[in-house]
Amino acid sequence: MRPSRRAPDQLRPVSLERGVVKYAEGSCMVKFGDTHVLVTATLEERLPPWLKGQGRGWVTAEYGMLPRATLERTRREAAAGKQGGRTVEIQRLIGRSLRAAVDLEALGERQITVDCDVIQADGGTRTASITGAWVALADCISWMKGRNMLKTHVLRDNVAAISCGIYQGTPVLDLDYAEDSEAETDANFVMTGDGRIIEVQGTAEKTPFSQDEFLALMELARKGVARLVDLQKLAVA
Amino acid sequence: MRPSRRAPDQLRPVSLERGVVKYAEGSCMVKFGDTHVLVTATLEERLPPWLKGQGRGWVTAEYGMLPRATLERTRREAAAGKQGGRTVEIQRLIGRSLRAAVDLEALGERQITVDCDVIQADGGTRTASITGAWVALADCISWMKGRNMLKTHVLRDNVAAISCGIYQGTPVLDLDYAEDSEAETDANFVMTGDGRIIEVQGTAEKTPFSQDEFLALMELARKGVARLVDLQKLAVA
Amino acid sequence: MRPSRRAPDQLRPVSLERGVVKYAEGSCMVKFGDTHVLVTATLEERLPPWLKGQGRGWVTAEYGMLPRATLERTRREAAAGKQGGRTVEIQRLIGRSLRAAVDLEALGERQITVDCDVIQADGGTRTASITGAWVALADCISWMKGRNMLKTHVLRDNVAAISCGIYQGTPVLDLDYAEDSEAETDANFVMTGDGRIIEVQGTAEKTPFSQDEFLALMELARKGVARLVDLQKLAVA
Amino acid sequence: MRPSRRAPDQLRPVSLERGVVKYAEGSCMVKFGDTHVLVTATLEERLPPWLKGQGRGWVTAEYGMLPRATLERTRREAAAGKQGGRTVEIQRLIGRSLRAAVDLEALGERQITVDCDVIQADGGTRTASITGAWVALADCISWMKGRNMLKTHVLRDNVAAISCGIYQGTPVLDLDYAEDSEAETDANFVMTGDGRIIEVQGTAEKTPFSQDEFLALMELARKGVARLVDLQKLAVA
Amino acid sequence: MRPSRRAPDQLRPVSLERGVVKYAEGSCMVKFGDTHVLVTATLEERLPPWLKGQGRGWVTAEYGMLPRATLERTRREAAAGKQGGRTVEIQRLIGRSLRAAVDLEALGERQITVDCDVIQADGGTRTASITGAWVALADCISWMKGRNMLKTHVLRDNVAAISCGIYQGTPVLDLDYAEDSEAETDANFVMTGDGRIIEVQGTAEKTPFSQDEFLALMELARKGVARLVDLQKLAVA
Amino acid sequence: MRPSRRAPDQLRPVSLERGVVKYAEGSCMVKFGDTHVLVTATLEERLPPWLKGQGRGWVTAEYGMLPRATLERTRREAAAGKQGGRTVEIQRLIGRSLRAAVDLEALGERQITVDCDVIQADGGTRTASITGAWVALADCISWMKGRNMLKTHVLRDNVAAISCGIYQGTPVLDLDYAEDSEAETDANFVMTGDGRIIEVQGTAEKTPFSQDEFLALMELARKGVARLVDLQKLAVA
Repeated sequence: MRPSRRAPDQLRPVSLERGVVKYAEGSCMVKFGDTHVLVTATLEERLPPWLKGQGRGWVTAEYGMLPRATLERTRREAAAGKQGGRTVEIQRLIGRSLRAAVDLEALGERQITVDCDVIQADGGTRTASITGAWVALADCISWMKGRNMLKTHVLRDNVAAISCGIYQGTPVLDLDYAEDSEAETDANFVMTGDGRIIEVQGTAEKTPFSQDEFLALMELARKGVARLVDLQKLAVA
Repeated sequence: MRPSRRAPDQLRPVSLERGVVKYAEGSCMVKFGDTHVLVTATLEERLPPWLKGQGRGWVTAEYGMLPRATLERTRREAAAGKQGGRTVEIQRLIGRSLRAAVDLEALGERQITVDCDVIQADGGTRTASITGAWVALADCISWMKGRNMLKTHVLRDNVAAISCGIYQGTPVLDLDYAEDSEAETDANFVMTGDGRIIEVQGTAEKTPFSQDEFLALMELARKGVARLVDLQKLAVA
Repeated sequence: MRPSRRAPDQLRPVSLERGVVKYAEGSCMVKFGDTHVLVTATLEERLPPWLKGQGRGWVTAEYGMLPRATLERTRREAAAGKQGGRTVEIQRLIGRSLRAAVDLEALGERQITVDCDVIQADGGTRTASITGAWVALADCISWMKGRNMLKTHVLRDNVAAISCGIYQGTPVLDLDYAEDSEAETDANFVMTGDGRIIEVQGTAEKTPFSQDEFLALMELARKGVARLVDLQKLAVA
Repeated sequence: MRPSRRAPDQLRPVSLERGVVKYAEGSCMVKFGDTHVLVTATLEERLPPWLKGQGRGWVTAEYGMLPRATLERTRREAAAGKQGGRTVEIQRLIGRSLRAAVDLEALGERQITVDCDVIQADGGTRTASITGAWVALADCISWMKGRNMLKTHVLRDNVAAISCGIYQGTPVLDLDYAEDSEAETDANFVMTGDGRIIEVQGTAEKTPFSQDEFLALMELARKGVARLVDLQKLAVA
Repeated sequence: MRPSRRAPDQLRPVSLERGVVKYAEGSCMVKFGDTHVLVTATLEERLPPWLKGQGRGWVTAEYGMLPRATLERTRREAAAGKQGGRTVEIQRLIGRSLRAAVDLEALGERQITVDCDVIQADGGTRTASITGAWVALADCISWMKGRNMLKTHVLRDNVAAISCGIYQGTPVLDLDYAEDSEAETDANFVMTGDGRIIEVQGTAEKTPFSQDEFLALMELARKGVARLVDLQKLAVA
Repeated sequence: MRPSRRAPDQLRPVSLERGVVKYAEGSCMVKFGDTHVLVTATLEERLPPWLKGQGRGWVTAEYGMLPRATLERTRREAAAGKQGGRTVEIQRLIGRSLRAAVDLEALGERQITVDCDVIQADGGTRTASITGAWVALADCISWMKGRNMLKTHVLRDNVAAISCGIYQGTPVLDLDYAEDSEAETDANFVMTGDGRIIEVQGTAEKTPFSQDEFLALMELARKGVARLVDLQKLAVA
């Protein structure tokens, strides 16, 4: 029995709310249960120096957590004077995941920066971030289309992400914090709308896992992502 | 005529919503028009080293701004590797302002950290932060009372803050960004519920101002703070 | 009775000595009693990037304190790897104060950097810094005039600053450290030669103060600044 | 045809040389073709603060690259003043991978720090590091056994890692730099001696991949790791 | 002919003024011509962690330069966020030099920190610093003796330093900036009152030098240091 | 008797192996007994900003130590976030020493960066680094000659370095760690192939030394450097 009494393949209540802040070209408040992330997409007519003059754009991401998003207060990274290893790892993952679905040539020499700021954290902040980031990105691209800034299709497919894990011997979908901190195995899957894989990260938290266990998690993830992609389509419709 | 068509002594619509996040001992989403700040108050049973063993507690504040709280994206301070001068100045002001209304002996050897994170900025983020911070602090102190952690009264009075300025020759209350960026003079007032002054900061943005002009601003501020204190009392009732 | 036996409206002995270092375009050793600050003004034919090509110049300030300017040794900020919040706050104040009296268009596309380094600190280092900084700035502008680098008047008026506070219930002028550390209220006033206000910062160190108390402090400050302006005029004559 | 003319399931020449430095409790120079990593294991009788007094030890890793390990010189991280995101990501992976095979209770309240310094980089530095790190760790544990510092078995199993990728449409094992920079998909597998999975990281570098493609990579990895584990056994025999 | 018209073995006018600041246990304003350094010695009843409980004390030094001590303004190290290589090198040298003349056991478990802040720089700031630092240190030790804090002799001998160099083919003593920037060879000598060597640093700025040239510089230094030691004795008498 | 049973004027076994890494334009693994340093020379067609357009090149050096090069693990400077004072001092010395033998005009507008990374440290890492750095530099310059990038001679002479010290009253050559940590006096000499001095650094670790003692050390150094220069000539032949 999961602490939340969910079925093994049941997501938490998910919401994807667009247009939640005033200035950003795209935005989304994404909630996976008690995990809430505010995502904004910023369009800028400038590129990182190493990319200039190559006729294509860039999508990058930054990730942060408000100090009291967590059960105990986490030290503010700006005060600590640097971004921690976990932050860096997550924001690199978000950026890679989004770029896999974007036609950077079609974007032109522009950069979209996606900021994912965790307002409240109850497990799965990186998967919620990616899922919401896609919506903010789509919102930003609509904004650009509305201004005739794009000639062709930029967004090739949906991108969504979900975590799975083996909790008390059972493969379960969309771990919350209570499950995550006890799971034997934890895996994050980033997938496209057509079911292909962009990124897989599986970690044996306690004991190494078998290939069969991994395949069971992948199967759960496939279902979860399909459901998230449906919700994204509703959100941007 | 003010860009927002407000009367010179009219505040923007203000809301103070308590209990907006799950984990913090106290919290408040404060809105002054399009300026939105999420404030949390965290209670910790530890003190900065220089205060240990003196039988009194501490209240401190940190301030941050989400990158896209602003019209153009602002660089994330965690990525820049340090908090800017403006951030440091504001968080010191918030901390001082709150401490003026707290009986630190009555608090006991504990620290309350107030985090003010600006979700959206349209002028007056420091005054909104202070006004909301008092609510989150009061919320946190109620939480402590509910657990019998306090013997006596900790909070001596309300604390609220408002900006005023001289805009196109007229003293006006609660500047929004459009006014703030053009005002000749800008002043922030932090006051108590009984009308006394905790902090005054007046700056001639363009031309030095006279004592009479300053007194006109102070008079406006007095009215504004009185209104904010009424709203605080409603919020914590 | 003040610890220094001064009358409530009596400044400490003030001296403003020009031309104290060899290389700077302007310099001043300012002393307010035992508070000694060495100020230099540096002229540079370059501007911060955000100001280039706008046909006007810039005046900025930096502030530092020698480690043993204080009763106990203070850690060197260069060794700590960053400037503390108090330093940043003070140098921003000095810069703003000076700019209020400078015609930046008349200065042309140049930057003057004013460095205020506290050799010895006995309260009031920021007000002594501003008062001495104006002299160093005036010295630098004379240097420029002597080289026919300026066509019109750059310096519109004098700028001087003084602290006031309520010490044992009495409003007093120009707090030294002994008073400052016990004052109920502490206010700094930056004013022009013609008595207008550039910056006001009043802080209730212990108990909030009334408007009448604040006005009494402002009245004292007016007298003190008038006296400082007279001394500045003598110094640059 | 692979640039190195290897068969798709063929590793580069691998060598694992123990005892290569004088002071470390364990060490290994690991070579996967032209990728050379010097690994040392350091035993210390101290623990990170958050782990003290819990009756178990810790294994952690740090990763670095000599500036000219690469085709073009890479800036020294010590000079840049911080470890880059890639470094942090890799050293966290190495640490997690090793801990999955260590009985931390049996280790006792001690820390083993594994340093992986890349002398020369030709792709696969993280997988070579993990594979060599296990040897250095085993060497260190032998050193402890030789001093009767351990009562029970500490090392539960071998740990080795290998990369795979889809290169010009074909799944291949152990990518070198030439392949890595052109591969459509890149995956790293960390596995135990008995074939279970500790960590899987698969990334679509260009186009998302299917589940079948992923399974083909996993199959290759299984073979590669089995071969590496054989070589580890020879090295520590 | 030297730019300053000094004889090859002639020092610049040297002054060593004690007791120049109010709070420090020892202080000295040292001037070698236009090179002016303010030195303070701070006594603290605490030690660096690695020295605790060993029954001996420590003497350390820090060095800084005011931004406009130089012909052109130098960036403030506190603003740059770190001490440069030259600063670190010089302060290590000052500390080592002083410790060579101090009986650390006799000092007891205390630390003396010597701060050398260059007010004006015209070459030879490190040698002026060391020479003045000895005076400030002696002043601090007198202060301790006056309070019966020391049982035995702490200061074994004088320590003074001077630079020499080969300028236009001639060995000369006490280089000023004009000479230093053109000298073929530059050497700094730190010596004791009885003529022994504590530290020698000789650098070929342009062409390598011969042993004979080096000996000629050493001979000049011996004379210069003897003169400085006489002046130190006068200063502390 | 020296701990290593060497004669007072006997070097440790020295080896200088060229071409030890694949990518660098020049490289050398230098061993002085158990002190092993990997040196690479990198040629880049870019210059530090302050040197551009002056028709000459630059040679600079960086120095690092693998964490377990030492008896006890040393904290990684990249993790500490800065290079320590000792590192900065050493890399400045290496750069200066090499530049003394290079005709920077003949090099042209290019930079050679020499990286010295200590693999194992048993005293004398800076002298081994300089000695090996010359070989890597020579290797790099041969590489350039082979590509017709140089018209004239760039390398004027050999550069090698050795330490000497007074160990138990006897002057000895090439201190290892056991001697270095107990020596009364420690001196490093950097010399050219023709016996002239580039840099001398002598430090009284415990008691100040006499001029005669210093001359004895210089005499030893001369012999040692002559031997090292012979070995360099063999290495690059």
